[in-house]
Amino acid sequence: MRLPPLPSLMIEPAVRAALLEDLGRAGDITTDSVIQAGTQARVALVARQAGVVAGLDFARLAWHLLDPSLAIDIALPDGARVAPGDSIASIAGSARAILTGERVALNFLSHLSGIASATAIIAEAIAHTKARITCTRKTTPGLRFAEKYAVRAGGGANHRFGLDDAILIKDNHIAIAGSITAAITQARAAIGHLVKIEVEIDNLDQLDEALAQHPDAILLDNMTPAMLRAAVAHIAGRALSEASGRINADTAPAIAEAGVDLISAGWLTHSAPILDIGLDFRD
Amino acid sequence: MRLPPLPSLMIEPAVRAALLEDLGRAGDITTDSVIQAGTQARVALVARQAGVVAGLDFARLAWHLLDPSLAIDIALPDGARVAPGDSIASIAGSARAILTGERVALNFLSHLSGIASATAIIAEAIAHTKARITCTRKTTPGLRFAEKYAVRAGGGANHRFGLDDAILIKDNHIAIAGSITAAITQARAAIGHLVKIEVEIDNLDQLDEALAQHPDAILLDNMTPAMLRAAVAHIAGRALSEASGRINADTAPAIAEAGVDLISAGWLTHSAPILDIGLDFRD
Amino acid sequence: MRLPPLPSLMIEPAVRAALLEDLGRAGDITTDSVIQAGTQARVALVARQAGVVAGLDFARLAWHLLDPSLAIDIALPDGARVAPGDSIASIAGSARAILTGERVALNFLSHLSGIASATAIIAEAIAHTKARITCTRKTTPGLRFAEKYAVRAGGGANHRFGLDDAILIKDNHIAIAGSITAAITQARAAIGHLVKIEVEIDNLDQLDEALAQHPDAILLDNMTPAMLRAAVAHIAGRALSEASGRINADTAPAIAEAGVDLISAGWLTHSAPILDIGLDFRD
Amino acid sequence: MRLPPLPSLMIEPAVRAALLEDLGRAGDITTDSVIQAGTQARVALVARQAGVVAGLDFARLAWHLLDPSLAIDIALPDGARVAPGDSIASIAGSARAILTGERVALNFLSHLSGIASATAIIAEAIAHTKARITCTRKTTPGLRFAEKYAVRAGGGANHRFGLDDAILIKDNHIAIAGSITAAITQARAAIGHLVKIEVEIDNLDQLDEALAQHPDAILLDNMTPAMLRAAVAHIAGRALSEASGRINADTAPAIAEAGVDLISAGWLTHSAPILDIGLDFRD
Amino acid sequence: MRLPPLPSLMIEPAVRAALLEDLGRAGDITTDSVIQAGTQARVALVARQAGVVAGLDFARLAWHLLDPSLAIDIALPDGARVAPGDSIASIAGSARAILTGERVALNFLSHLSGIASATAIIAEAIAHTKARITCTRKTTPGLRFAEKYAVRAGGGANHRFGLDDAILIKDNHIAIAGSITAAITQARAAIGHLVKIEVEIDNLDQLDEALAQHPDAILLDNMTPAMLRAAVAHIAGRALSEASGRINADTAPAIAEAGVDLISAGWLTHSAPILDIGLDFRD
Amino acid sequence: MRLPPLPSLMIEPAVRAALLEDLGRAGDITTDSVIQAGTQARVALVARQAGVVAGLDFARLAWHLLDPSLAIDIALPDGARVAPGDSIASIAGSARAILTGERVALNFLSHLSGIASATAIIAEAIAHTKARITCTRKTTPGLRFAEKYAVRAGGGANHRFGLDDAILIKDNHIAIAGSITAAITQARAAIGHLVKIEVEIDNLDQLDEALAQHPDAILLDNMTPAMLRAAVAHIAGRALSEASGRINADTAPAIAEAGVDLISAGWLTHSAPILDIGLDFRD
Repeated sequence: MRLPPLPSLMIEPAVRAALLEDLGRAGDITTDSVIQAGTQARVALVARQAGVVAGLDFARLAWHLLDPSLAIDIALPDGARVAPGDSIASIAGSARAILTGERVALNFLSHLSGIASATAIIAEAIAHTKARITCTRKTTPGLRFAEKYAVRAGGGANHRFGLDDAILIKDNHIAIAGSITAAITQARAAIGHLVKIEVEIDNLDQLDEALAQHPDAILLDNMTPAMLRAAVAHIAGRALSEASGRINADTAPAIAEAGVDLISAGWLTHSAPILDIGLDFRD
Repeated sequence: MRLPPLPSLMIEPAVRAALLEDLGRAGDITTDSVIQAGTQARVALVARQAGVVAGLDFARLAWHLLDPSLAIDIALPDGARVAPGDSIASIAGSARAILTGERVALNFLSHLSGIASATAIIAEAIAHTKARITCTRKTTPGLRFAEKYAVRAGGGANHRFGLDDAILIKDNHIAIAGSITAAITQARAAIGHLVKIEVEIDNLDQLDEALAQHPDAILLDNMTPAMLRAAVAHIAGRALSEASGRINADTAPAIAEAGVDLISAGWLTHSAPILDIGLDFRD
Repeated sequence: MRLPPLPSLMIEPAVRAALLEDLGRAGDITTDSVIQAGTQARVALVARQAGVVAGLDFARLAWHLLDPSLAIDIALPDGARVAPGDSIASIAGSARAILTGERVALNFLSHLSGIASATAIIAEAIAHTKARITCTRKTTPGLRFAEKYAVRAGGGANHRFGLDDAILIKDNHIAIAGSITAAITQARAAIGHLVKIEVEIDNLDQLDEALAQHPDAILLDNMTPAMLRAAVAHIAGRALSEASGRINADTAPAIAEAGVDLISAGWLTHSAPILDIGLDFRD
Repeated sequence: MRLPPLPSLMIEPAVRAALLEDLGRAGDITTDSVIQAGTQARVALVARQAGVVAGLDFARLAWHLLDPSLAIDIALPDGARVAPGDSIASIAGSARAILTGERVALNFLSHLSGIASATAIIAEAIAHTKARITCTRKTTPGLRFAEKYAVRAGGGANHRFGLDDAILIKDNHIAIAGSITAAITQARAAIGHLVKIEVEIDNLDQLDEALAQHPDAILLDNMTPAMLRAAVAHIAGRALSEASGRINADTAPAIAEAGVDLISAGWLTHSAPILDIGLDFRD
Repeated sequence: MRLPPLPSLMIEPAVRAALLEDLGRAGDITTDSVIQAGTQARVALVARQAGVVAGLDFARLAWHLLDPSLAIDIALPDGARVAPGDSIASIAGSARAILTGERVALNFLSHLSGIASATAIIAEAIAHTKARITCTRKTTPGLRFAEKYAVRAGGGANHRFGLDDAILIKDNHIAIAGSITAAITQARAAIGHLVKIEVEIDNLDQLDEALAQHPDAILLDNMTPAMLRAAVAHIAGRALSEASGRINADTAPAIAEAGVDLISAGWLTHSAPILDIGLDFRD
Repeated sequence: MRLPPLPSLMIEPAVRAALLEDLGRAGDITTDSVIQAGTQARVALVARQAGVVAGLDFARLAWHLLDPSLAIDIALPDGARVAPGDSIASIAGSARAILTGERVALNFLSHLSGIASATAIIAEAIAHTKARITCTRKTTPGLRFAEKYAVRAGGGANHRFGLDDAILIKDNHIAIAGSITAAITQARAAIGHLVKIEVEIDNLDQLDEALAQHPDAILLDNMTPAMLRAAVAHIAGRALSEASGRINADTAPAIAEAGVDLISAGWLTHSAPILDIGLDFRD
């Protein structure tokens, strides 16, 4: 199934805010003074790098909020792979609107495509295993819904969207609660029937205590492939297993081959570089 | 002079939105169920990497908006250099509030410190020249004011904050306007007396036409150090010179040594990785 | 464990909006003209009906946003049972602020206490079974987070908070997807590892197909206790079972005794009458 | 005259907020994964109970904000009576948009129709008298404008919309001001010429003092029909008379027959159950 | 009774927005770079013109939102008369905060004081009559609540606050409705019992038709004092009379002496010049 | 070049807020009750005074946000001169929408046209000199972007838009910094390369110190034409010169003839009376 789009309703506040941030109190004074009203232009969004695109609805909306009469023709869906030089979309209409909206459109598109591309690199590196690459809550403030969408566009899976949609018991929770048993027991008593529980462990000695409480998933933090392999064997399907810590395209294969179900990487959303996408004028 | 802080009033909407994004519709269900109300904790923000910190007021506000009674002691100002293991701040008070606010505080702090650190690396690499490193409008949507602040914290200078506070005539403007002369003339007629004009040129043949219109600055895009050196000589102080395109710590020194006044790098704000900062519990 | 409070940050926007809705464009013109500035008063929030209170932080904030110097002493926590005449809280300070904030404070408190009380009635009626009473998404627009909190205060559990935090495949989804198998399979392929899947069935013939796909829960809609008993027996612990449809204090015991894990009732949040709470002036 | 609609501008913020509340951070993950993009459907909004509908523009907007291309055909205006099984509106278009918007549309429609229906029951019960049923400020926070509209749709009249649009002097105001005379005198001195004054009295002994100050209306709180009859006779048309306290369909006729001009009931907006309206798929 | 203040809650959004409008994306770059952090200052708000002050809470909040530690001592309440040179308030604390907040504080204070002063001039000119000066809905977009408050501070009365709090039937309504009788009849049938009705007439021939419908007030538009006198005599206390059109300090006395109850002037809020108030540094 | 319009995106929030401010909680109860739905009307916006119009997009949006089907035909662009009786625009469609939107549309249009007209008067008075009339930051809170646009429409130039887009060193900055030299030096070290520096001087003795620091502009505050002439001669083109203080149509010519580049007047935005524009019904 193709990646379902985010409703415009969810996208619009972020795009509107970004445009107002850029327009400031006087609008695009360069374009307004240098380009005559009525001047028409035709441009293309062109990939300058190989990767996976995401965020085309954000770009489209940036231009359409400025000028609903722009003709925007999107050639590739979010999630599509691009090679350098590939045309992603073409825009025709008011030269002023195209130039005024360019930066906001590209800021969304290149940022989200950067995340999708980083995700796709890992996804591909572990495609021969059953493991899936997943994101974290280490996202850019205000853009979590968009960045999580970009992870999906890149072929990744989403972890929690916030503090409220799943239980994730970390080392500090356990330390304060006194034990894994206490922590899981208290969490289970508090939550609804559609909330899952994951617990983080730092060493294999904690595994039996954790498993005894039937968590849905166990987060194996900062373990070597050998340790992960041992953990997966010990879990034996009684919970999902997630590996985290220092994941990149080089380390991911060995970790995935250890048999874990999930590999999570904060890097996808907090440090992925943009995908270089440019705007070329066609005459 | 120490880096002037951003007014809380400017920071608060972004921090409040980020907290609500994370709290969702039920709050921190893990911490609320696992940690008893009234439990106290003491933690430290600790650098895991060398770099420059920025965004401590964002982190402080994240915790204080959750719990004004937290004692937050910031050891280093924004703009300070840190080494791995350095303690940046300590927080004491409600364990629940500390854990609930942790991710939002760190997301701001590590993102902005990442930008400050990237800026500082370039700033240091060109410190032996007169050139300054400056940012662009290639920022994360919604966070431009914060990211530009982080650039200042890292020792960089700010370029335009938006489309409205300076004239920047780019190649496409010139193409549509017909000539550099036409573009600058029209821009100058439209603007107030406190607005500066910068014009982008792609080759040295354009320099004389540009200089004849007395722009405040000339953006020399994607030129080699040799070309830049020639351009600077030709400009001869009649305008500021700015180099852009493929700037990094390796390429920056040669570019700066070419004599330009400014080097601009979109990478600082769109692709700098975070600075790794963690939260350590003290007993 | 006592009911964890909602962060003020989550409550404040709703309370602020409600106050502004009531203050309009001129404020409380009656109180402002009739009561002298500086007049002091002491009042008590008093239950006029038996029930369970919820929303005291909303009431407190309504008064504190008007006047931070009011002394508000809350005698009972959210979730406490009250009898007619019980004092819930006392407020002392500016008579103007007390009177101006009265209606907004009571509107929140009596509405949320009404939901908590309705929940508690069902919870008590099924306390001899393992079943828990749970809410739905049939909430008042804009107040879902608060109404779900009130359900918790009344001893109930929360169902989904939105369309995004769990999969709930209903009859129309199945009809369009073609089969339960297709629907669950497609959902599972799309979601992250912390998202649960529940599927609604209307008759027992669908049970085997559903169970074959290992959903986390099965919603048994509009079934008699006898049908529910058969369903529970057939499920045999392979999924959680939830009964819905025409739940009230009279029907709930028989349904719960059929062995289901959950009973869900939209009525708790869309039609529960308020709990009558008044404001009494003390000498 | 048919009930004038509320401007879309007033409705849209509430509907938009409700949709975002339901969509959360990932949208409708069930529908998006189970229903193919492009699937068409045709559904009808059908009354499951007798009553009066209100809020159709809210429902329409909920769907149109998600998908402007949906064909929404509203068969009955707000204020119309429906019998069980009556079709209220039909919607055709994207199955995804119909399913995603269903709950928000129904939450508004069934809540507002519940209020309209409750109002209509009282209005009918007193139709043989000159009395009108009116609402109070005991409304759901954030939805007052909508709930007051629903009262109008049900054939009722509106009382104050807030603290700022009329003077309503209650018992506590009188107690603090010292006398009815003082309270009305001070209020009259403060207000503009288009603001009316109503004063609440608890016993008939207060009537002469109140009437001497020429209020526009007198609120007779918690009086028996006999007391009301005496009060109305005494007022003798010198002010409007309003009865409040324990109004329902059973008690209203006797109260109205006592000759009062208005009967006010908080119950209409704070405790009326929803009108059961469902969504039926047509094939 | 002293002028009751507007609740801070109503003021804060406007002040916060004005500060953010002025701070832009980088804050006060002049003060931040020129004034050392920690520098203290003491300043006074001083009237440069005679008039009536209004808006001191707006000014106070402008500074306190920037820096809650500023000591702000307000010497005169809103509504007080000032002579040139009078000190209105003194502020002590951070020099940076004082300078950064100066313009926003003064913009509110001088604008609202200008309205209060203009109102007071008319109020004084007609003080020997029973007429009161009142405002209109011709206010600055977004500031109506504040400007209406300033009118009260200047000794004036408020007209409608919006389209929703009173009926004002104007010439165009009458023309379209067909007659005054039709217009008033339809309005009365639609409104609640606390809503007043005013009708505008352009000539005395309309008076009898209007009075027959018992409006609360009659707006006599653009009439000479002689016509007004005749109208007042004809109305004979059966409704309030309001004169409008070309009201200023010169024309007001004759109009007021004609015996009308109210004189309304759009000029108070749409064209009153500011009251000149300055900030003086004390050493 | 014709005045470039402000993007709708920038205008819409202000217009939407103004409409909601006027509609309140019940909408236009007069029009809704007096005018039948479906009634059509045709009206014209007509100048009642000579001046320059500005704000037609605000007026258009006010009506279009209420009813997108209104036909609005704007005859004159912003910046056009009008004589009394000139038709500015015509609107045809729903009589209800036309009447409900009238006041908001006119409030924007007459306020902004008042500013444009005041600006044009000064601009014309100094048209024989090289000086340009410019505005200040003394604007109505919340409307700065619109009022600065109106200044442009009137033929004026814009000064700073906020505290963040240029350095303006005033007397108090200098006093606290210790000297002009210190102030400019510190400012220059802090700012980006596209930020200009202006310094205010009160007497000619300060000129040499100021010029030695190469500011972009010098603000000559409250000087006589003779002093200004001397200052301009002394500056000799080394910086732009701006005169401020007590500027009006009478004083402006002599000041402009003194040779300054700019004349700034707070009065344009804080005290200009509206331009009287009315709505005439056509039949």
